[in-house]
Amino acid sequence: MKNNTLKIAIVGSSGYTGGELYRILLHHPGAVVTVVTSEKSAGKPITDIFPHLLGLTDLVCEPLDPASIAKKADLAFLALPHVTAQEAAFQLHKQGVKVVDLSADHRLADPALYETWYEHCHQHPELLKSAVYGLPELHRERIRKASLIANPGCYPTSAILGLAPVVAKKMIDVGTIVVDSKSGVSGAGRSPALAYHYPEANEGFMAYKVGTHRHTPEIEQELSLLADASVTLSFTPHLVPMTRGILSTIYAKLSVPADTGTLHNLFQEFYRNEPFVRLLPLGQFPNVRNVRGSNFCDIGVHADGRTGRAVIVTAIDNLVKGASGQAVQNMNLMMGYEETAGLKFAGLFP
Amino acid sequence: MKNNTLKIAIVGSSGYTGGELYRILLHHPGAVVTVVTSEKSAGKPITDIFPHLLGLTDLVCEPLDPASIAKKADLAFLALPHVTAQEAAFQLHKQGVKVVDLSADHRLADPALYETWYEHCHQHPELLKSAVYGLPELHRERIRKASLIANPGCYPTSAILGLAPVVAKKMIDVGTIVVDSKSGVSGAGRSPALAYHYPEANEGFMAYKVGTHRHTPEIEQELSLLADASVTLSFTPHLVPMTRGILSTIYAKLSVPADTGTLHNLFQEFYRNEPFVRLLPLGQFPNVRNVRGSNFCDIGVHADGRTGRAVIVTAIDNLVKGASGQAVQNMNLMMGYEETAGLKFAGLFP
Amino acid sequence: MKNNTLKIAIVGSSGYTGGELYRILLHHPGAVVTVVTSEKSAGKPITDIFPHLLGLTDLVCEPLDPASIAKKADLAFLALPHVTAQEAAFQLHKQGVKVVDLSADHRLADPALYETWYEHCHQHPELLKSAVYGLPELHRERIRKASLIANPGCYPTSAILGLAPVVAKKMIDVGTIVVDSKSGVSGAGRSPALAYHYPEANEGFMAYKVGTHRHTPEIEQELSLLADASVTLSFTPHLVPMTRGILSTIYAKLSVPADTGTLHNLFQEFYRNEPFVRLLPLGQFPNVRNVRGSNFCDIGVHADGRTGRAVIVTAIDNLVKGASGQAVQNMNLMMGYEETAGLKFAGLFP
Amino acid sequence: MKNNTLKIAIVGSSGYTGGELYRILLHHPGAVVTVVTSEKSAGKPITDIFPHLLGLTDLVCEPLDPASIAKKADLAFLALPHVTAQEAAFQLHKQGVKVVDLSADHRLADPALYETWYEHCHQHPELLKSAVYGLPELHRERIRKASLIANPGCYPTSAILGLAPVVAKKMIDVGTIVVDSKSGVSGAGRSPALAYHYPEANEGFMAYKVGTHRHTPEIEQELSLLADASVTLSFTPHLVPMTRGILSTIYAKLSVPADTGTLHNLFQEFYRNEPFVRLLPLGQFPNVRNVRGSNFCDIGVHADGRTGRAVIVTAIDNLVKGASGQAVQNMNLMMGYEETAGLKFAGLFP
Repeated sequence: MKNNTLKIAIVGSSGYTGGELYRILLHHPGAVVTVVTSEKSAGKPITDIFPHLLGLTDLVCEPLDPASIAKKADLAFLALPHVTAQEAAFQLHKQGVKVVDLSADHRLADPALYETWYEHCHQHPELLKSAVYGLPELHRERIRKASLIANPGCYPTSAILGLAPVVAKKMIDVGTIVVDSKSGVSGAGRSPALAYHYPEANEGFMAYKVGTHRHTPEIEQELSLLADASVTLSFTPHLVPMTRGILSTIYAKLSVPADTGTLHNLFQEFYRNEPFVRLLPLGQFPNVRNVRGSNFCDIGVHADGRTGRAVIVTAIDNLVKGASGQAVQNMNLMMGYEETAGLKFAGLFP
Repeated sequence: MKNNTLKIAIVGSSGYTGGELYRILLHHPGAVVTVVTSEKSAGKPITDIFPHLLGLTDLVCEPLDPASIAKKADLAFLALPHVTAQEAAFQLHKQGVKVVDLSADHRLADPALYETWYEHCHQHPELLKSAVYGLPELHRERIRKASLIANPGCYPTSAILGLAPVVAKKMIDVGTIVVDSKSGVSGAGRSPALAYHYPEANEGFMAYKVGTHRHTPEIEQELSLLADASVTLSFTPHLVPMTRGILSTIYAKLSVPADTGTLHNLFQEFYRNEPFVRLLPLGQFPNVRNVRGSNFCDIGVHADGRTGRAVIVTAIDNLVKGASGQAVQNMNLMMGYEETAGLKFAGLFP
Repeated sequence: MKNNTLKIAIVGSSGYTGGELYRILLHHPGAVVTVVTSEKSAGKPITDIFPHLLGLTDLVCEPLDPASIAKKADLAFLALPHVTAQEAAFQLHKQGVKVVDLSADHRLADPALYETWYEHCHQHPELLKSAVYGLPELHRERIRKASLIANPGCYPTSAILGLAPVVAKKMIDVGTIVVDSKSGVSGAGRSPALAYHYPEANEGFMAYKVGTHRHTPEIEQELSLLADASVTLSFTPHLVPMTRGILSTIYAKLSVPADTGTLHNLFQEFYRNEPFVRLLPLGQFPNVRNVRGSNFCDIGVHADGRTGRAVIVTAIDNLVKGASGQAVQNMNLMMGYEETAGLKFAGLFP
Repeated sequence: MKNNTLKIAIVGSSGYTGGELYRILLHHPGAVVTVVTSEKSAGKPITDIFPHLLGLTDLVCEPLDPASIAKKADLAFLALPHVTAQEAAFQLHKQGVKVVDLSADHRLADPALYETWYEHCHQHPELLKSAVYGLPELHRERIRKASLIANPGCYPTSAILGLAPVVAKKMIDVGTIVVDSKSGVSGAGRSPALAYHYPEANEGFMAYKVGTHRHTPEIEQELSLLADASVTLSFTPHLVPMTRGILSTIYAKLSVPADTGTLHNLFQEFYRNEPFVRLLPLGQFPNVRNVRGSNFCDIGVHADGRTGRAVIVTAIDNLVKGASGQAVQNMNLMMGYEETAGLKFAGLFP
């Protein structure tokens, strides 16, 4: 480890986003994981939980102890369940550790909204003011200066990146937005349950939490900021029999006449300098298999003359751009690294 | 074979809908398959093409010869590609054989619309007048008297059954309909191609033919009839890494105030006597795994107070209620059998 | 229900074999399910557990009460975990209810062997004497007269059917047998656990319980009877990322010179009259997809001149011929029905 | 590009091994791809064939022209079909380009054996003498000095690494070896065909080329060298419904008494310094999901007291350690790089 190497803690490392943080950071040019915590697996090597890392690390899991982490790490990724993350963020923040929270706990700026959707009173609402919503494509400069990042949800990342250009440029009627999203099963986490038991999930496909999913207010918050108006939209998540990936199909009425070429140009302009947004060539639409394991968000657009609607399709890997990759991207911005450091790897195809 | 047994020809029997017709008819109480045709496999036992039928049939494939079929069969199912089906339907119909056409060739009543979407001039447009669109839930009485049935497309079946109650009862603004459909790969047929090659389709998910899929006018035709007004809608098909099943998620603005209970009651009333439509209990949404291998269409509904939209989710097996099962249901109606004869079997779960 | 209809109890109906029994019996010409038991779901409709049966049954789950079952049913299928099945079999048997036990509790004739492999002392060893191992291809006549059937394990069914001809006809050296078996995940049952969590099982493949799987003594017992000598063999199960199916690849040294034709003839002769064994044409090997949902066992054979080994490959659906279908086949034999009654349906392909 | 950067050609870059070479080499510290060839896609960007590489490369495919390649590249990977690779290897070799041939064309030292199994007369048998079989664990020193590497087949890599320790140390009776291998569908290449069509391969499992697969002589050649005796064995490949991975389950009679601990120690000793072989802890067995996307070979061992057999299980990613990763490992050795350069990345889990 070089003197200037950034020391990293992965807090709550036994889930898929924890494992994915580890995979990515192994190859980061300037950061190294020094602490991994897991209550259940404290004392055990991380490779007991993640045998694919065998031979690549000797780290042993510790219980979550903010003081101990503060001694060993400069920045902590919180891969904890929501609610649980609040206290951990608070303690680590107090000790001067920079925090990227992958849970939902610091995404909604309004604590009342948090309470409505998450059915818990936020324990540290004052922290919400300093937390920055970590979508670099929208908040890059604020992220650079932040000490607490609310890493976006997987569905919101796919929805907001698809809608930002047309909402910001007032191309659509924001009262007509429908976001139909489809996620691989890893999005449900690593805890076994009947719905994710292989014989039940395999060869199955369903919508769930129709009209009630907790990622809805997060999408609406960010789009409302962009629209400078209150946005309410329909969002329906679905479970796909695959491990990774989110594809969102987004519909909205065009408020100004536009053909597909115009729409495509708008996106091209908007994302011109973005290292992780790939606007596909005119007429092409994304497939989650092409972003698997990578930090890219692929986008395809269509302006439908028959119905006057824009149809926008986005694809991300829910565990990378939708979670751990984006978290590292935020880390890079916060700590002054090249934004793409350790992240510009190709996905795994096939 | 009893004297009054109905004799059946499966024309173009080497694809998945042909095989599925065979599977279903094996257990039909009053019908028996007497002819199977396949140009490529003429002279070979049908079990060479479908090894799962080994031990259950000795039939040998024949080339397509309408005169020969007319001698051996009372009714023919056409499991041919579109365009090809036109001449076969015409010849068989002329010879007095009843026809259920599983292709798209007789679904659109307007030959000009057919030409626009299918890029072929219809060769026998006069037949379109006598053809009946074979969705029993909408056209049962006309089907009973028909000699040529246009068996509905798989996507249209899932879309129309989800929308019929609210369109017929004027509950929604028909200008706001979005149909987001997801299909298993068997919907693409049995011809190998790169997009359906296992390593490409597996762990992949994509939208395709965005705004341009040929099932669009078929859905619009039937909804326009129900609405007594011209309906134009957005329809996006997606490819799911699973073999069977279509799930359609349907969105439309409610034109009259309604909560989920009201919507649920409306569907209950509309489908009260339907043997193959299962409205799920309030608050539940369908999963394609529960209709796999069966002729059921499962439906769940939600009225979203936040957005004023109805969200309707339907699930069918694309090869059964979306093709061969519905074709047999139509046969039952045409030939005076109990509508459910040979069709009320449970799906295969898991 | 006709007067002479056989009344059936499914005891422990919430797992996959319970659901599959239900699916099969729905279409049985002479039997009807009158009782379903489930401790966890007592009082709930069976369709809460198995939504694919919606519209096909109104039965409500009951707690397991042998006296109550005896009043309502002539025959009980036990789809209980091993150990638990012992007392249920004993009580039902005492009350005059015929029993087909799908658990492992009555398969090993020797209670000491049971104790060694299952680490439990058998509570009713006297019942083991009257229990018949329910593999109709080997014990048809004894099954007809039995009142307690030990329904074979899924792996043993696939292994024994592949080896019976060559062992019975002394074609192989029984000291050289290797059985390499691969099973879909439904074989692990319906209880969620990390190894069967979709993202862990999907795109995974592993051997498990190498050299220690409990189905080993069951295979050896039956082959020893056939060989009239003690048979010890290597058996390795594997977990395949699919829902249904077992494929067993079996190796043994030929003890007499034979080419593939000779071997094929031997199998043809041995299984000539078997309704559910399909010997594939010379040179062809089975695929589990061709038996999915059906009661068939497909077999392919090869005599390898280079190595002097026979290679035999068998495929079954683990939940049908490997469990519930075979259980109904046993019921048919015990109760005097046609052996194939309700069972000669085609599998589901694709 | 630095002055001392190694320039690489990927010849036949449109298949999965070509894409995988590209993915790996993108992150190699000392090599850069300068030429990609594809007859079918000449003139098109490589990202048309591999959309997952979008944004990571601008290379355009060229037709195969050895003289042109020799100008632009120091080393060529041949990802061509067998037979085709012979002439390309010959021409490139003649022009002084180092060659790693991923096809089967230079693996068998004996041209007669090649002709027997591949049914083609070898066009440049003289080259076979200088070709080195590129399994670094066995031939590291010869690889360092080679200019033409025969990159091992995927199945042979998994089989030979599992057997090398026990064969070299004379622990088993080499007349009793059975190798039962299971591969993901990407092993069949990228050309669509019915057996690999998604609805046919999904939920399917089969053995194929029983007793006749062309990888058999390659395994026997290497084991015969190790045993210093002629080895003949049974090898059966199977197709698993997953994209990547090979698991081989290997059986052989122990020729000296040994328990699992002894066997484990032997493997530990044999592979002590191997960077890409991971012997799992005693009692654990590999799963292909833990090597997905990585260059590791995981191994588990069992000595079965009941049968006197060793059971050895190995897992690799067929496209990485079984093809492109191993090819880069060979390149590293040939060109004097650190053997693990660009290869010590973690696999993708889940």
